[in-house]
Amino acid sequence: MKREELIKTIYQKESMLCVGLDSDFNKIPKHLQSLGLKEGLIAFNISIIEATKSVAVAYKINIAFYEQYGLLGWEVLEATLNAIPEGIFTIADAKRGDIGNTSAMYAKAFFEHLSFHSITVAPYMGKDSLTPFLSYPNKWIICLGLTSNPGSQDIQKEVLQNGKTVYQHTMEKVTQWGNIENTMFVTGATHPNELASLRQQFPKHFFLVPGVGAQGGNAKDVIQAAGIAQEGGLLINSSRGIIYAGEDEGFATSAGLAAQKLKEEMAFFFE
Amino acid sequence: MKREELIKTIYQKESMLCVGLDSDFNKIPKHLQSLGLKEGLIAFNISIIEATKSVAVAYKINIAFYEQYGLLGWEVLEATLNAIPEGIFTIADAKRGDIGNTSAMYAKAFFEHLSFHSITVAPYMGKDSLTPFLSYPNKWIICLGLTSNPGSQDIQKEVLQNGKTVYQHTMEKVTQWGNIENTMFVTGATHPNELASLRQQFPKHFFLVPGVGAQGGNAKDVIQAAGIAQEGGLLINSSRGIIYAGEDEGFATSAGLAAQKLKEEMAFFFE
Repeated sequence: MKREELIKTIYQKESMLCVGLDSDFNKIPKHLQSLGLKEGLIAFNISIIEATKSVAVAYKINIAFYEQYGLLGWEVLEATLNAIPEGIFTIADAKRGDIGNTSAMYAKAFFEHLSFHSITVAPYMGKDSLTPFLSYPNKWIICLGLTSNPGSQDIQKEVLQNGKTVYQHTMEKVTQWGNIENTMFVTGATHPNELASLRQQFPKHFFLVPGVGAQGGNAKDVIQAAGIAQEGGLLINSSRGIIYAGEDEGFATSAGLAAQKLKEEMAFFFE
Repeated sequence: MKREELIKTIYQKESMLCVGLDSDFNKIPKHLQSLGLKEGLIAFNISIIEATKSVAVAYKINIAFYEQYGLLGWEVLEATLNAIPEGIFTIADAKRGDIGNTSAMYAKAFFEHLSFHSITVAPYMGKDSLTPFLSYPNKWIICLGLTSNPGSQDIQKEVLQNGKTVYQHTMEKVTQWGNIENTMFVTGATHPNELASLRQQFPKHFFLVPGVGAQGGNAKDVIQAAGIAQEGGLLINSSRGIIYAGEDEGFATSAGLAAQKLKEEMAFFFE
């Protein structure tokens, strides 16, 4: 998907909402569990997508949740991806990254075998671990920058001799390998001050922002810190806060309402 | 697998050889390609394992090469893992790492659904991204330290204000979260000087060393720099140099000979 198409969708829907499909069989409603692992998870995901597709501009599929079931998980993953309507941005949340010839295989897995628009990638191994993903037209990498979890302190926030943090250095490097048409960054909602500085440093790159809801961040603060006028520039993700908003037969309605509520927190930006 | 069991195998076989199963359908012999993707790759891997199992102390399965084929790839992966004899250390070369609840899912995928002894992990997201893997008894993480590829310059070799490189800092942190019974590091054969310093800094941790063969490193130099007396302390990986040593019907014999040759380069250590 092209950048301009994503921006158009954001303004049409007046939403930057990304719904995270971190679907766990043990947490889906009992009546769906009774269908069995594969059918239950597929039914759950399709219902969530139906209930949220009018306000979601992106879906992020957390690959770990599917990979844990091996073959069955891949079947659920494929069925879920096929259920996402055209025009909505799709993210393989996979955090991949390896030496060049191996990253090329991951690119093939997620961009060719499956047809995701984007994949999250881990930058530790440097340039040749990311460039294979960048050779696909209209496909995106979403590189880890400053993540939302407590462990972001351990390596990302360390300071280099030139005074930059590891995450700033990393993001600068990555912007030399890709461009604003194929590169986004993961920047957690749990670091509101840093988000504003990062927007100054990277005025045009889209940020995928997890950490809203369960992890404590808030959509309005994120947009005030890092929204880009006329472009949006943000995909604000909520996973557990939406997909587990309800527990019983009404789970999809509850998910739809939770998504709508989050969208409304973003409305001020579009006024 | 316990550390002492791995060490015992290394001394019994007088080998630190890890064979990397980076099996690519386009590169396997024509007569196996004619069996089709799934059967061809399974037959190839089983033949390579049969031909090398007397000298290999570990097999490293590069998950990307299987994931690119989706469902079929997972079937090949499972069949390959099942073909590795008991007592040989198995590595899921997956470079995974995500927020805690997601890493827990990856641990489930590779340690429960599949029963690998170990998984390679990427440290950029810090402590909570690695600890879920460490809660499994007798399972291992193999954390990226200083990798063999050109991109290791971009982030890993940057210097922090305290004078340490990012990779040294990373490895120190990781040794606080795990111990020598459950934590190894990836340290590339393409950095012989750094390997010796890393061994001084981490005298007891096993290192998984890629980059021998196709990437230019050499087993003897690696062992002289970083072997541990009485323990070995190294798994020296070769992938392409062994599995594609031959091209036609004799491919397995050629692979066996290439593995034997690499083992012989290590013989001096056991004398």
